[in-house]
Amino acid sequence: MRMAELSAASGMPVATVKYYLREGLLQPGERTSPNQARYGEEHVQRLKLIRALLDVGGLSVATVGEVLAAVDSHAPTHEVLGLAQRALVGSAKDVDEEPRAWALGVVTDLATRHGWKAEPESPTVAALVLTLCTIRDLAQAHDGLLARLDDYATLADRIAEVDLDTVTSLPSLDGIVEATVIGTVLGDRLFFALRRLAQSAESGRRFVPQEG
Amino acid sequence: MRMAELSAASGMPVATVKYYLREGLLQPGERTSPNQARYGEEHVQRLKLIRALLDVGGLSVATVGEVLAAVDSHAPTHEVLGLAQRALVGSAKDVDEEPRAWALGVVTDLATRHGWKAEPESPTVAALVLTLCTIRDLAQAHDGLLARLDDYATLADRIAEVDLDTVTSLPSLDGIVEATVIGTVLGDRLFFALRRLAQSAESGRRFVPQEG
Repeated sequence: MRMAELSAASGMPVATVKYYLREGLLQPGERTSPNQARYGEEHVQRLKLIRALLDVGGLSVATVGEVLAAVDSHAPTHEVLGLAQRALVGSAKDVDEEPRAWALGVVTDLATRHGWKAEPESPTVAALVLTLCTIRDLAQAHDGLLARLDDYATLADRIAEVDLDTVTSLPSLDGIVEATVIGTVLGDRLFFALRRLAQSAESGRRFVPQEG
Repeated sequence: MRMAELSAASGMPVATVKYYLREGLLQPGERTSPNQARYGEEHVQRLKLIRALLDVGGLSVATVGEVLAAVDSHAPTHEVLGLAQRALVGSAKDVDEEPRAWALGVVTDLATRHGWKAEPESPTVAALVLTLCTIRDLAQAHDGLLARLDDYATLADRIAEVDLDTVTSLPSLDGIVEATVIGTVLGDRLFFALRRLAQSAESGRRFVPQEG
């Protein structure tokens, strides 16, 4: 199909499609003349994925570019997942030496108990360290959250199993990598909303006064 | 303390503190002369909370304002939590009628099975509807994720119990509301990172070739 048809099929303005082409988010079409190219169903699919990552995932254009570069790199699956996760987590702000050492200790112990790899230079570990330091800094009253870290970690293990079950139910390698990206970004939005509904129900049970 | 001391105690520039005062995120100090005010420990605490919501939670200044207005409103706890959640979820984009009806049906059935309230006009339900429609639209291959909605919902129930246990372990009402906001925003960031580490471990077990 031509650019105008790709625009119609994806429901995006031509200018938007050209912008994603320029930014490298969308692979070029097959050139048929100096001014024209032909696009296929894979371009429509890719545009849907871009839209999902931007609108529902709330990622920036730059982050979407990094994630898609990882998907397109054809490196071994585990490596691509690492690259995609790295792009999604982003870079965390620096924290002071003392709280950083404390939080790294907490994360290392937790990782040992749960069989996780927690390399201090990993962006996920850095994000976790920043979050823990912030929680500790806010008030001693929030120790309750830290005391339940293992409960949360155990539930994270259960969710990761479901996540990977979902992902491995797909046939091809490309499918696995793309599904993991979708699972990571949209799965987070999904779970965020489910957690809100469950919290609201639990909060209603505990806090709403019973009618007499 | 005076403005300069509040700035030092919070580690924020005076201009930033004044900006939060103007935006209503920080309550005014006690006026001691036409040009001076006195601030207390509660101002330092509030600044830490603002910083956490902005930096770690990734919220906008406007959203932080809405969340803090809910915290400060002194309405009944369950109502304040609803207001805070509403501000956090934001407003979802519109979706077409047919996919919307399908997604609402999925959410309503799920909510019935899990004892949740799922009012169609709630922002959380709208966010869930948008996410489900996006996943369905991306490819039939992503049905795997939808098929595991109940698994995710069951784990969300378990997490909500831990969330509310954390929150109710605090003594005062103000503490509960503030802790829930912290738990909601930072708890999401925390769980996001834990899920990444658990996924990475699970992905390593399943995808990394074993050395001979």
